[in-house]
Amino acid sequence: MSHETPAEGERTEGDLTRTGMALKHERTWDYELDRIVEAVDEREASTVGLQFPEGLKRRGPAVADDLRELLADDVNVLISGQPCYGACDLDTYLMRRTDVFVHFGHSPMKESEKIIYVPLFSNVEVTPIMEESLAELADPKTDPDVGLVTTAQHMNKFDEMRAWLEERGYTVHTRRGDERLTHEGQVLGCNYASAEVDADQVLYVGGGKFHPLGLAMEHPEKTVVIADPVNNVVTVADTEKFLKQRYGAVHRAMDAETWGVIFCTKIGQGRWDVAREIVDANEDAYLLTMDEITPDRLTNFGMDAYVNTGCPRITTDDGPQFKKPMLTPGEYRIAVGEEPLEELSFDTFHGTW
Amino acid sequence: MSHETPAEGERTEGDLTRTGMALKHERTWDYELDRIVEAVDEREASTVGLQFPEGLKRRGPAVADDLRELLADDVNVLISGQPCYGACDLDTYLMRRTDVFVHFGHSPMKESEKIIYVPLFSNVEVTPIMEESLAELADPKTDPDVGLVTTAQHMNKFDEMRAWLEERGYTVHTRRGDERLTHEGQVLGCNYASAEVDADQVLYVGGGKFHPLGLAMEHPEKTVVIADPVNNVVTVADTEKFLKQRYGAVHRAMDAETWGVIFCTKIGQGRWDVAREIVDANEDAYLLTMDEITPDRLTNFGMDAYVNTGCPRITTDDGPQFKKPMLTPGEYRIAVGEEPLEELSFDTFHGTW
Repeated sequence: MSHETPAEGERTEGDLTRTGMALKHERTWDYELDRIVEAVDEREASTVGLQFPEGLKRRGPAVADDLRELLADDVNVLISGQPCYGACDLDTYLMRRTDVFVHFGHSPMKESEKIIYVPLFSNVEVTPIMEESLAELADPKTDPDVGLVTTAQHMNKFDEMRAWLEERGYTVHTRRGDERLTHEGQVLGCNYASAEVDADQVLYVGGGKFHPLGLAMEHPEKTVVIADPVNNVVTVADTEKFLKQRYGAVHRAMDAETWGVIFCTKIGQGRWDVAREIVDANEDAYLLTMDEITPDRLTNFGMDAYVNTGCPRITTDDGPQFKKPMLTPGEYRIAVGEEPLEELSFDTFHGTW
Repeated sequence: MSHETPAEGERTEGDLTRTGMALKHERTWDYELDRIVEAVDEREASTVGLQFPEGLKRRGPAVADDLRELLADDVNVLISGQPCYGACDLDTYLMRRTDVFVHFGHSPMKESEKIIYVPLFSNVEVTPIMEESLAELADPKTDPDVGLVTTAQHMNKFDEMRAWLEERGYTVHTRRGDERLTHEGQVLGCNYASAEVDADQVLYVGGGKFHPLGLAMEHPEKTVVIADPVNNVVTVADTEKFLKQRYGAVHRAMDAETWGVIFCTKIGQGRWDVAREIVDANEDAYLLTMDEITPDRLTNFGMDAYVNTGCPRITTDDGPQFKKPMLTPGEYRIAVGEEPLEELSFDTFHGTW
């Protein structure tokens, strides 16, 4: 695939250059149309629903075209227009109303007969940036133990990463984490259970800083080295700036007289007991239910502060865009004095649905 | 109620001044808490769901407080955080998961045992602006026939409006419209069936220009006089500017090579057959399903043009905010040459769900 800009209106295989959320590296992509066609035949399906994450939605029409070619004329193909940010975020409306439902780009959070998960793997090379990361890892002669984690889209290279480290004298520690995760060594933005390994250092191979920051917060006793093959940079996770932002939000929320407690209705983001417990114990807290959590939706309620029991990435990544402080459940407990400030930690999700 | 700005953080009865969607006039408000409490007792409910339109969401916490006072401690009150723009737009997630579901501020689109509709009436005076509207209506001695329509929030004054016109020598023609409408003389942003009366002039008493514009488009043979007691202004509906904007969108869409056809998943906005028919007949058309229709959601798909089979107000009011032309189903037929340009008409909704 070249990085040339295609002519206006032309859509090329794997083209993400005009999505506004362009991926910074190339990805191999196998639509697994055979699996979909087979499921349609087996179930004698008359409707097929397709769901893509935001950055891949532009591929929807091309996939629909290919499927229409392969399927009988009376099979309807529907594309989900709902935002989608993870396997926790299935379009349950479309899923319930189609005979075959295909979720592209995320690894399964929970297996289901109904859902066909089609993964998406990056084909970026990982060893060049791993080579650079050696400068930040301990010498294997002094400390050979290293944990290894990555995200779903680099999972296809996990064995290669492990072998590469072992060749250099490291003892690589990995685990699958918990049931929310599909793969050995996989982390999610909300779950770092796979880093609970017997090593003082963890190497994260993957794009962005959010995942390794969460990891470092969740495992403060470990050194987290970030080898980012997407942006081609090696760093060590530094939680200080992140913590300052979070402490700032907690302090601003301490004076709140009204609290909106958000219960997220997305299939893999509901924490009913957590939300309920807060509302039951605080007469100034109100339970708000919604799927997308946006500044506009909250502004209409005019509360002084919010607690988000849904996706922690909304709270921590998007938090500054909200006009009022939005806290994780743990931060809420600090703001209302139930826990000391030192208890501030990263909000993580476990289990499925 | 005074229009003084309350102190920061203070919430007064009926205060909408800081919602960003402040109503321009006062409204009486009866929460009908008795009906809600009665339903909770009858159904031995353990959960109550409350849904407010955008401009009234700020009242949610106060209503929840009052209900908590009246209800047993183990009854949970949940407030919908989903956007809400009409009775077509029920939060079905919350409705299904609560024992009693209360929808505030809109008149019923369809009666249901499950839903308690609590209406909201304006208490603005209507006769002063009706007095002014006489200048635009025909003299009753020449043409006494006048149709009378209004919106749900002025329904409490409908008899007064009728009597006032009759006292001045007019013969007032009204009808209920179709099953989508609750009241005699009521119009919705998507339904003007109540104006199908035997009169060449129709008086619309209510806020805003959208409703009377739709009415004038739907009934081009009638003169539509707007008596707006909210903005205190009398005008005659002029469809020219509106039509120009719509023709502009149709022309821009004529070159489209890809079409996104939106099926809206909101309970009262689904037109499956309309969407299906377009997609079946056009191989460059793709069916997209979503609840909220926003510029961001469509941009991710990168289509050349869109057809919205959901709320026509999104298409016509918000259309200019979308980066690509968005058409009503009728406008689509013109853009692809199935209908002549002269066929351009307002998109209306009939039936319920």
